[in-house]
Amino acid sequence: MAANTFGERFRVTTWGESHGGGIGVVVDGCPARLELREADVQPDLDRRRPGQSRLTTQRDEPDRVEILSGVFEGLTLGSPIAMLVRNTDARPGAYDHLRDVYRPSHADYTYEAKYGIRNWQGGGRASARETVGRVAAGAIARKLLATAAGVEVVAWVSSVHDIDTELDPAAVTRLQVESGPARCPDPQAAARMEAAIEEARRAGDSLGGVVTCVARGVPVGLGEPVFDKLDADLARAMVSLPAAKGFEVGSGFGGTRLTGRQHNDPFAAGPDGRPVTVSNRSGGIQGGISNGADVLVRVAFKPTGTIASPQETVDRDGRPVTLEAKGRHDPCVLPRAVPMVEAMTLLVLADHWLRHASDDVLSDREGAEDARG
Amino acid sequence: MAANTFGERFRVTTWGESHGGGIGVVVDGCPARLELREADVQPDLDRRRPGQSRLTTQRDEPDRVEILSGVFEGLTLGSPIAMLVRNTDARPGAYDHLRDVYRPSHADYTYEAKYGIRNWQGGGRASARETVGRVAAGAIARKLLATAAGVEVVAWVSSVHDIDTELDPAAVTRLQVESGPARCPDPQAAARMEAAIEEARRAGDSLGGVVTCVARGVPVGLGEPVFDKLDADLARAMVSLPAAKGFEVGSGFGGTRLTGRQHNDPFAAGPDGRPVTVSNRSGGIQGGISNGADVLVRVAFKPTGTIASPQETVDRDGRPVTLEAKGRHDPCVLPRAVPMVEAMTLLVLADHWLRHASDDVLSDREGAEDARG
Amino acid sequence: MAANTFGERFRVTTWGESHGGGIGVVVDGCPARLELREADVQPDLDRRRPGQSRLTTQRDEPDRVEILSGVFEGLTLGSPIAMLVRNTDARPGAYDHLRDVYRPSHADYTYEAKYGIRNWQGGGRASARETVGRVAAGAIARKLLATAAGVEVVAWVSSVHDIDTELDPAAVTRLQVESGPARCPDPQAAARMEAAIEEARRAGDSLGGVVTCVARGVPVGLGEPVFDKLDADLARAMVSLPAAKGFEVGSGFGGTRLTGRQHNDPFAAGPDGRPVTVSNRSGGIQGGISNGADVLVRVAFKPTGTIASPQETVDRDGRPVTLEAKGRHDPCVLPRAVPMVEAMTLLVLADHWLRHASDDVLSDREGAEDARG
Amino acid sequence: MAANTFGERFRVTTWGESHGGGIGVVVDGCPARLELREADVQPDLDRRRPGQSRLTTQRDEPDRVEILSGVFEGLTLGSPIAMLVRNTDARPGAYDHLRDVYRPSHADYTYEAKYGIRNWQGGGRASARETVGRVAAGAIARKLLATAAGVEVVAWVSSVHDIDTELDPAAVTRLQVESGPARCPDPQAAARMEAAIEEARRAGDSLGGVVTCVARGVPVGLGEPVFDKLDADLARAMVSLPAAKGFEVGSGFGGTRLTGRQHNDPFAAGPDGRPVTVSNRSGGIQGGISNGADVLVRVAFKPTGTIASPQETVDRDGRPVTLEAKGRHDPCVLPRAVPMVEAMTLLVLADHWLRHASDDVLSDREGAEDARG
Repeated sequence: MAANTFGERFRVTTWGESHGGGIGVVVDGCPARLELREADVQPDLDRRRPGQSRLTTQRDEPDRVEILSGVFEGLTLGSPIAMLVRNTDARPGAYDHLRDVYRPSHADYTYEAKYGIRNWQGGGRASARETVGRVAAGAIARKLLATAAGVEVVAWVSSVHDIDTELDPAAVTRLQVESGPARCPDPQAAARMEAAIEEARRAGDSLGGVVTCVARGVPVGLGEPVFDKLDADLARAMVSLPAAKGFEVGSGFGGTRLTGRQHNDPFAAGPDGRPVTVSNRSGGIQGGISNGADVLVRVAFKPTGTIASPQETVDRDGRPVTLEAKGRHDPCVLPRAVPMVEAMTLLVLADHWLRHASDDVLSDREGAEDARG
Repeated sequence: MAANTFGERFRVTTWGESHGGGIGVVVDGCPARLELREADVQPDLDRRRPGQSRLTTQRDEPDRVEILSGVFEGLTLGSPIAMLVRNTDARPGAYDHLRDVYRPSHADYTYEAKYGIRNWQGGGRASARETVGRVAAGAIARKLLATAAGVEVVAWVSSVHDIDTELDPAAVTRLQVESGPARCPDPQAAARMEAAIEEARRAGDSLGGVVTCVARGVPVGLGEPVFDKLDADLARAMVSLPAAKGFEVGSGFGGTRLTGRQHNDPFAAGPDGRPVTVSNRSGGIQGGISNGADVLVRVAFKPTGTIASPQETVDRDGRPVTLEAKGRHDPCVLPRAVPMVEAMTLLVLADHWLRHASDDVLSDREGAEDARG
Repeated sequence: MAANTFGERFRVTTWGESHGGGIGVVVDGCPARLELREADVQPDLDRRRPGQSRLTTQRDEPDRVEILSGVFEGLTLGSPIAMLVRNTDARPGAYDHLRDVYRPSHADYTYEAKYGIRNWQGGGRASARETVGRVAAGAIARKLLATAAGVEVVAWVSSVHDIDTELDPAAVTRLQVESGPARCPDPQAAARMEAAIEEARRAGDSLGGVVTCVARGVPVGLGEPVFDKLDADLARAMVSLPAAKGFEVGSGFGGTRLTGRQHNDPFAAGPDGRPVTVSNRSGGIQGGISNGADVLVRVAFKPTGTIASPQETVDRDGRPVTLEAKGRHDPCVLPRAVPMVEAMTLLVLADHWLRHASDDVLSDREGAEDARG
Repeated sequence: MAANTFGERFRVTTWGESHGGGIGVVVDGCPARLELREADVQPDLDRRRPGQSRLTTQRDEPDRVEILSGVFEGLTLGSPIAMLVRNTDARPGAYDHLRDVYRPSHADYTYEAKYGIRNWQGGGRASARETVGRVAAGAIARKLLATAAGVEVVAWVSSVHDIDTELDPAAVTRLQVESGPARCPDPQAAARMEAAIEEARRAGDSLGGVVTCVARGVPVGLGEPVFDKLDADLARAMVSLPAAKGFEVGSGFGGTRLTGRQHNDPFAAGPDGRPVTVSNRSGGIQGGISNGADVLVRVAFKPTGTIASPQETVDRDGRPVTLEAKGRHDPCVLPRAVPMVEAMTLLVLADHWLRHASDDVLSDREGAEDARG
């Protein structure tokens, strides 16, 4: 309990179940005087929403966001920004057969064991619908970081099942990502992914994959050792997403197959004389602190638990049940996971960017004195 | 700044640099009346300490722990437990050549950029020596969880460079792990790992690998969606360790190559009628909450950044420098990472176990009423 | 920034300005399976709302609460409970003359200095309207504590300006408090307070006073030294209320006029053999932990800053301005402060009651073993 | 449990009991490159320590502080600063008669009820000795705020029992405060206080009183509504001190006897054109945010619970006991409370000063752009 708040200075509290009055978020700590309108938030919600393409669940919700507080005459006030999205397409009756049954690899059993109750009309709080609030908050973080720090965050689907891509993360653009429903910037791989996802749907099966995310323009110095390292906070952020099973920064698990000589990133002098790494196996983070290179992470998402094939499970009384899912679900969560991964990256960066402001309280003074000197 | 505290109810604050007066930790929130002596903490520190075998750095520190507070007549008081380990084998002169140079893939540059200063006599706060406090705190968590909840946590080296193991996590014992300096319970693989590490040392190179960790006997219901999910907190804990580059829970990245039908864990009725999963690709966690199966995680550690081979870098003024490391370092951090991974797992579990206590505040009453019936 | 969340286990995040889309709160950490409906929350909002009597501001808002999440079939789910109250009676035009002027003893200047912007259409976030979210959350805490722990919290107006009361806190009932618009259970004093408030309104002036609050049935053991002592958290909670200038627990400032012999609370054996204090100058809290006696606090509220008399101030450019307030305001905030003080008391107690659940994790087991013999 | 950490950005974790290995603190979040030596910390500890004058307890401890980490070549590193003070003058035998008895108005009973155990050799964690860590941390905050922000914090004893002072807070100097053992800058009152305290000691009784504290040079904009208001955090800080029973900011309880016309602080243009308040009933804080005037608080301390007179109480088994205190205690805690109140004020201000750094992240950029034209 009491674990629906994320971040320390850019503090996000989400709420809402898949079926109920709505879903939303409170963003506390957004600096004052940022230009902000609902039109800044809606596009990311549109990329997250169900029913946006034939690859995603057919649940069709417009997910219109309403900003309820914290903005005055188009500018943030420094007070909490509350945002609300109403639930509109809930069909609770569709879930009646799940009232007493635990779906395999879902949260039905663990929620019921922990809370003694669950909203069985869909996934409740464990539904991917929960991420509406994260994505809305992430859109504010995106605006803040783009405006004030020149940071750009782009994620994409880098693999689905056994379909991999070989892409240079530095070169991927948002335009490429959004050019097709698979959100894979490699057109050939994208076509194969789309086909595979369609095939999985037809087969009553589901697929997993990997989202890669790059953050460009991240200032040097974000991240706070030893526990709030930038990569540690990114890891928590990503693994808190529904269906996430793995996280990598920079070279990740593959880096364990290299030797130190192969793996180390040599330093050279950058254009402005500051040190830059010649390679980026560090993923833009060294000792838990951003080094100015692209921050690079990968997130593994398991194949969706809900499948339209018979599965063995038990009911509340321990009796064996063969379950055949109905409801409306994604055969592959990956394309919709892209804005979620971006949102979590943005939330972590915004939080650390604000925390970073207090790093320089003494050096500023010194600088000022030097200047006077 | 202000990021050296971990956990909410079992709250650990670590401090200390590799060179300085000492290193330590304050454990706040350990329940009262746990039997605790220094002898409960020392063994894990001995497993972490340098100089314990030919595979580890030759820095030789006894790392004797002193409990300074929070214990009275052999029992914890419920007040903070402060523990201190003095630094004894620091040879600061050995680092003089690093005063103005940034070692590749170390935290030298990022610390200096962030803080405007660094303790160049070794890694300072970024040294693996920082984990002394974590391991000492983890030992208390181990005692607590073993005593009160019957939880057992065992980690081991499951790969070094390209040497892999195939082990059943359910079967690995602490005794097997500790049977050799590689901390790999597969004797054949262990022998190859030891040889590879020795070879790397001779070649002035270093190796990475993977630590696997299993927690047995974890009660159902630990973990707090949506941000403090058990796996999300484990991810943060692990990636906050020095040199960690990746995290997996259950099926991890490999699970993305399975379909939903292959991946889902069917439920069956367990011996006591409670649902149990027949397989464990979930890694003991569903929807961020423990389900009673073994909690299973894997952590990737990069090859140590410090190598005894020439490397290209720059100094503080941006001038190219060819660096040849001296100092005393591990050619492979994996064997010593085992107690660190266990410690972080234990800290997360202890924290969530204490948080779990408030889950049942209403059901207990109901139970009581039922009983009165 | 990022300071609109209160509590650790019963965690409340409020949002909203006096003029804007609405005002609300997210309650995270309410245990699952508490019966909860909007009808449990509305009565406290009705006691807080403006326009409820001739003593309060004539702004007339129904303040109907909507529960948006966290409740399913009449029971809490353990997930966050979001509540929304729409703003309806805002007349922003009424504040045009305040756009560039700083009202004395208001937050106009400090908000503008801190945030570089303020919602000058009323008090914005500094308005007492901000407490809607607190009171709504407090109503849930009230239900929880009454149901599960038998705690009752009652506050009242114990003084207005120079009109004092002499009441036995142990004997005051909610019925007495609610018997008149002054919320003072002493009928004679109440009549004088009503007259004084009316007189202040006519004179274009305002009055302050003191609210006393008692919590009965508080279990022994709530409060966590050394910083989260129960009285320390109550102090913060109370002084965070608009217009609060002072806080006392038990004997308070008056207790400094007694000697130790006069002040100490002797212990005697209570009906069940547990120690009870014969007097209660400790205010139910010793060493920061509840001792089972009534928790007793007092809160000083200054006279409302907004008065209908000319006042000297400056505008944004530092030019002297004589300000004559219009708008609609309370000449005395005290009667409406009663539900606010109760709410903050309830939030602190609910949080510490949940935190208290982990105190007994070891003793429970012991008990269990004892029972097994 | 888990409540021994104070602050968010200047985060202080204290530990230690009155009898045991020692007592100390970890300061996490002190900015890097502050000049810091033990000599910066020792003077405040000397003002806090027992045995410093005939007015204080005769327990005689030198309380020498050792800085164990976080400082390198005389400068802070940005990493946690651990400080240790050994306990030297503990005479545990002196407390044998208290093993099973609950001293009136002490924490003996509540600690034992909460934790099921207590260190009966003195007050344990509830002893005023606990404040060693607070005062040591406060000394660092003092150095930081003086160096970087020009803030000065001075506290003094403004009343003891019925001996009051009438002093202009703006005029009191540290030199005046330290001119005598009573720490009262009014020499006549100080002499009467000393006599009264001596008399109380002879009579086996004890006295309480009030400490007043002023912070000068506080920048405008510190404090974060709605829950982390500057005055709310000061209230919590002060009431968390041992023996504290009340808190006031600015006009406090006395202000409730004024009308709004009398109470409001008119604004005028200050020397630099910024608004300043002509009077300071606000106590330097409006809407929870500092306004640039002196921050002014008062703290009530009850008469010490330990008295050398017979008192009625019960033992662990509920049997009536007449207790006659031995041990060594202050008949009046006020003189030693002065550095404690200063320390807590400094901790709150340092924390909010660091948090304030992120207020300007957007305005700074704007300024920069303006400058560029």
